[in-house]
Amino acid sequence: MQKESHTITIVPRYCETDQAGVVHHTVYGVWLEMGRTELLRANGYVYRDLEKTGVFFVVVDMAIRYRRPAFYDEQLELTTTCTGMSMARVEHSYLLKRPTTGVVLAEGKTTLACVDAEGKVQRVPEYMNLG
Amino acid sequence: MQKESHTITIVPRYCETDQAGVVHHTVYGVWLEMGRTELLRANGYVYRDLEKTGVFFVVVDMAIRYRRPAFYDEQLELTTTCTGMSMARVEHSYLLKRPTTGVVLAEGKTTLACVDAEGKVQRVPEYMNLG
Amino acid sequence: MQKESHTITIVPRYCETDQAGVVHHTVYGVWLEMGRTELLRANGYVYRDLEKTGVFFVVVDMAIRYRRPAFYDEQLELTTTCTGMSMARVEHSYLLKRPTTGVVLAEGKTTLACVDAEGKVQRVPEYMNLG
Amino acid sequence: MQKESHTITIVPRYCETDQAGVVHHTVYGVWLEMGRTELLRANGYVYRDLEKTGVFFVVVDMAIRYRRPAFYDEQLELTTTCTGMSMARVEHSYLLKRPTTGVVLAEGKTTLACVDAEGKVQRVPEYMNLG
Repeated sequence: MQKESHTITIVPRYCETDQAGVVHHTVYGVWLEMGRTELLRANGYVYRDLEKTGVFFVVVDMAIRYRRPAFYDEQLELTTTCTGMSMARVEHSYLLKRPTTGVVLAEGKTTLACVDAEGKVQRVPEYMNLG
Repeated sequence: MQKESHTITIVPRYCETDQAGVVHHTVYGVWLEMGRTELLRANGYVYRDLEKTGVFFVVVDMAIRYRRPAFYDEQLELTTTCTGMSMARVEHSYLLKRPTTGVVLAEGKTTLACVDAEGKVQRVPEYMNLG
Repeated sequence: MQKESHTITIVPRYCETDQAGVVHHTVYGVWLEMGRTELLRANGYVYRDLEKTGVFFVVVDMAIRYRRPAFYDEQLELTTTCTGMSMARVEHSYLLKRPTTGVVLAEGKTTLACVDAEGKVQRVPEYMNLG
Repeated sequence: MQKESHTITIVPRYCETDQAGVVHHTVYGVWLEMGRTELLRANGYVYRDLEKTGVFFVVVDMAIRYRRPAFYDEQLELTTTCTGMSMARVEHSYLLKRPTTGVVLAEGKTTLACVDAEGKVQRVPEYMNLG
């Protein structure tokens, strides 16, 4: 991957809030996945197409630290960074910020395993490992 | 199908609420699907197994009338009734109640089409049509 | 409302698909809500701010016809049209299209009621009714 | 809390699966929350009622290790254990198993902070700390 880091805008949807008036904490994982997808796309890969060639990435580890609540319909920035790649694994870290103030709302880390259509671990395709 | 109607208990999850303090309206569709699944099971069919034999049911029409809000962690009752079955379609109606008061929270209707793994319309299996 | 119709782009998220390989039908309701929010914004209103002034819109009726499946990560177009407004109600219709082919994936209709923070029906604010 | 551990049954819903044919990884966080709620209930506390008295618990840390995929409509067992409680924080660990085989599907850990309705950190109520 040439670009190791990529930032996207996240705008919480109404259905993503809960009765405490903030975004439900399980939604952040959805955003992290979107961040990874767009980092991949910024490097020229479309996850949808990878799957069609039998390359799947599954989450084997996810950790999120929630620092401050996120609110409905505010503009947030999620930065996804590829922090490591081994034979069959890819690691990312994430930073979710409120850009108007620079405040960090959450930090995250995930480990993905590269598997085939049957879920068997396989090597990360070589073309993704260059650079 | 011998049993045309079946009632299940629904307890709204925290993540199903929104910042208005009630269950988000799109969650009801999830409950209707659970109602259909359990009506099927009450008749001896497991949808998971049907899919394995190439029988899929897809929603082609869904209508919900929301009468009163549903709240987090309250016990609700959802009654699902099979109201019609044709060559390739099945119709259901739904009633969501608060059993402590008998108040109706919502009513729904769906039409399902029977399709194969490629999404092509096929006949509802004959064994589901008896009785 | 001066603009009666507004179109947004929808890109299905991975978590919005199900094991049949298509977007789960209950997700469409989330998209309709996003369509309404953006039609409102195109007319100069921010739903988040309306709520802060005690103006809530709740869905009392939703009907969706599903014509063709939607797939992960494809670009779709959702057009939301305000089709009627009475004292305390607003009606919308929706058209979800695959713009590359013009194929209609789904059509929808909703009725919203204007309520206060306690859920009591109130008039749609006059400023929304002009024009 | 007298009971430090509690086990509930989880049956994945259709909408919780994704196009890879397994439960989407972000759903596990929803189940952990259900596990906490039922552990609380097994100790005589109803989270819904705690909120009404101004006692909120928010997730500040969540970590999940995904070992094996979970499938639609299978019976799973989630065991939630309270592993620590300080002035304003509560820690839990989680084990998700397929009871028919004893296989562990996932392990999790969360840290909750006790906050008031405005999100300000407050002490965990004394009555929850006894025993």
